[in-house]
Amino acid sequence: MDIKDIFDKKIIDKEVELYGWVKNHRSQVNYGFIDINDGTTFNNLQIVYSDELDNFNDIKNIKVASSIYVKGIIKKSPSSGQDIELLANKIDVIGDVDNDYPLQTKGRPTREFLRDIAHLRVRTNLFRAVFKIRSVAAFAIHEYFNKNNYLYVHTPIITNADCEGDSQMFKITTMDLANIPKIDGLVDYKKDLFSTTSFITGSGQLHGETFVGAFKKIYTFGPTFRTEKSNTKVHANEFWMIEPEIAFCSLDNLMDIEEEMLKYVVKYVLDNACDELKFLDKFVSTGLIDKLTKLINSKFTRITHKECIDILKKADIEFEFIPDYKSDIQKEHEKYITEYFNGPVFITNWPKDIKAWYMKENNDGLTVQAVDLEVPGSGELMGGSVREEDYVTLLKRAKSFNVDTDKIKWYLDLRRFGTSASAGFGMGFERLIIYLTGIENIRDVIPYPRTPGNLNY
Amino acid sequence: MDIKDIFDKKIIDKEVELYGWVKNHRSQVNYGFIDINDGTTFNNLQIVYSDELDNFNDIKNIKVASSIYVKGIIKKSPSSGQDIELLANKIDVIGDVDNDYPLQTKGRPTREFLRDIAHLRVRTNLFRAVFKIRSVAAFAIHEYFNKNNYLYVHTPIITNADCEGDSQMFKITTMDLANIPKIDGLVDYKKDLFSTTSFITGSGQLHGETFVGAFKKIYTFGPTFRTEKSNTKVHANEFWMIEPEIAFCSLDNLMDIEEEMLKYVVKYVLDNACDELKFLDKFVSTGLIDKLTKLINSKFTRITHKECIDILKKADIEFEFIPDYKSDIQKEHEKYITEYFNGPVFITNWPKDIKAWYMKENNDGLTVQAVDLEVPGSGELMGGSVREEDYVTLLKRAKSFNVDTDKIKWYLDLRRFGTSASAGFGMGFERLIIYLTGIENIRDVIPYPRTPGNLNY
Repeated sequence: MDIKDIFDKKIIDKEVELYGWVKNHRSQVNYGFIDINDGTTFNNLQIVYSDELDNFNDIKNIKVASSIYVKGIIKKSPSSGQDIELLANKIDVIGDVDNDYPLQTKGRPTREFLRDIAHLRVRTNLFRAVFKIRSVAAFAIHEYFNKNNYLYVHTPIITNADCEGDSQMFKITTMDLANIPKIDGLVDYKKDLFSTTSFITGSGQLHGETFVGAFKKIYTFGPTFRTEKSNTKVHANEFWMIEPEIAFCSLDNLMDIEEEMLKYVVKYVLDNACDELKFLDKFVSTGLIDKLTKLINSKFTRITHKECIDILKKADIEFEFIPDYKSDIQKEHEKYITEYFNGPVFITNWPKDIKAWYMKENNDGLTVQAVDLEVPGSGELMGGSVREEDYVTLLKRAKSFNVDTDKIKWYLDLRRFGTSASAGFGMGFERLIIYLTGIENIRDVIPYPRTPGNLNY
Repeated sequence: MDIKDIFDKKIIDKEVELYGWVKNHRSQVNYGFIDINDGTTFNNLQIVYSDELDNFNDIKNIKVASSIYVKGIIKKSPSSGQDIELLANKIDVIGDVDNDYPLQTKGRPTREFLRDIAHLRVRTNLFRAVFKIRSVAAFAIHEYFNKNNYLYVHTPIITNADCEGDSQMFKITTMDLANIPKIDGLVDYKKDLFSTTSFITGSGQLHGETFVGAFKKIYTFGPTFRTEKSNTKVHANEFWMIEPEIAFCSLDNLMDIEEEMLKYVVKYVLDNACDELKFLDKFVSTGLIDKLTKLINSKFTRITHKECIDILKKADIEFEFIPDYKSDIQKEHEKYITEYFNGPVFITNWPKDIKAWYMKENNDGLTVQAVDLEVPGSGELMGGSVREEDYVTLLKRAKSFNVDTDKIKWYLDLRRFGTSASAGFGMGFERLIIYLTGIENIRDVIPYPRTPGNLNY
């Protein structure tokens, strides 16, 4: 039986059998207590055993982290800490623990130490909370889009085109790196599996857009890759992205969708990961639950980039980077603006030169219909835009950004054959998890984070 | 408004506005009919327009595949083919169609031709049906595991370890392929982003197992890669896999889960993609709906590999490959055995030498606790096993398979620190879609299929 079921179904005075791992063990002369967890729920169940059991002396020596089998009766607990406990009739060890087990109960290991034992850190309360929330949030995203009739598209990971440009992409090959075949000094790609340069993707957007012309509303949710050699708290070389795209969609519609989706996910996590959030609120990020509850009840502010810069320029703060009407905003600005409005802020209509080539130009000739969502504590969470739907304008913009338009003829085709006049956004899934958990370092919200020089698993 | 809502809410005698694409257009002297589809539902809505509209002459020339805006009243239809139609008060073209549009209504294009226009084929009824079912099935899988309290884990795509062995894996690099840096003739991996050999994964199983020790029941659902240079109907170099893993799980438990999961998904698709299945049943795979309905009401057969070979040997058929107690079974055998039992068949306890090193050996010393699920019409759909939970035995088996055990010390650790005694299986998602749609070629169930020499998008 799952421990979750014992708690949920309020089982009492019944015999149960269960398997799980020892989280804590306090043995006395004639009896002992084992906190067991089987992974189905955040909280442990207390097992009480006594010297009436045949193998009492073996049981006394059971180590933390052992996997065990237990049979016994669920009873109301006389102690104040918990409602119920299990009086054991039988306890057997399934898997013992070698003495070099690095997660002993004494002391609290640092996050850096835990990153070095990524295969074991998931057993700590901290990481059980984080990865449960990651799983719950992922399902919430699928459920939101499914309920709203979006098609889930598996855009390709292997690609020879990318909307962010080749330079940030990993190359893939089946050739022997020590002996790359060449012709006239150039790589002989005919010898490679795809007979051409090939990469792993940085975004599914362009491929996703091709599906909008058939399904109106689509989303992707898959891994993406960047080769950035930056060791910051917010960068990883592998991360998951959600990229919805909606046909016949204005910038205002897009913001409505972004706001509704985020509130849905936050509410779902509040409802389905209570114990985990309580734990994080208590030990990691005070006020976390308040922050999330406030978000679902707030109305997100909407301002233009120009209005944003106006506010930043009037601020009685000395910024490291001076706010500029022609430039991107920095972390410090994001922080100021979300605190200024005390909640999430959409910033729209960005200077066209600092945004992507496929974004729709406004009539002013200076800005594009782009929108970034900034959230308190985490900064930019989503970035989106209306797409340029005019073939000639799009081609001109692509060329001015030095995009290899031969490689994306198929994408340009979409504007020649019944354009979808679509809009879409991307949300970095890890950014969302950082927001939902209050964990600051992206390495601690990814099961096996990939950063420069780190590939030990 | 979405056309789906018009149908679902049985809207009548009401004015609506909608956007969509022209699927068919028949214009007469004083009036005309446009079949419009906006992607929210499989079926089209008929628009009727007349010369009372100002731009009647422009409307008459609207081409198939154009995107249009329509305003009008929903009316009961006088014609027999449909229940309702839209009497247009206004029709505007959003996106016109260039004359070289390759999907004209005349004639039915071949699947090969359609593969060459992967960005447009999704607009055909065939591919709208297939990719809708793909999306519905993906959600069903997430819902099944979520309902049953499995943790969804994003196992890493970039890895330096793999349970299937390096030789089948794509290498990735940030180095310049034309100028691979070397030291003493060997690749200088210190110059690569991860400072080591790196690959994209062929399976998330090993990493997934590390999460079982914390959550008991987990699953992965993500892209996987193989470098096979085979151009068959069932192989692609990029495909999606589902890999559940369950702690304290026997082979029988595992089969129970596989059967329950598959039935859940099939039932969900039957319930949520009726129109698409009807279309496929009519035009692609006669009897498809019967086949699926039968599956959810059947009890899957369970036989051992030995029993399977016994049956094959007695068959009054001349197989190309002679059935053998020490060997894998072939496509022709899979076909025979599923037809013999007239339904899905689990085959268990395979010869140990032809299965993976991490599978648990039986006491006979000859077989392992592996199980393959064979389904009628598609062959092997899932493959799984109980994992060897004993450290010493596992290490010995790994070495006998020439696995580089230094690279997977972390995996072996799991047996030293409270083993999970787990079992799990892998299901190729495309295999499932082939089964669900009756489409035979894997290239036609993947949005942008990756096969040797094919990377045009």
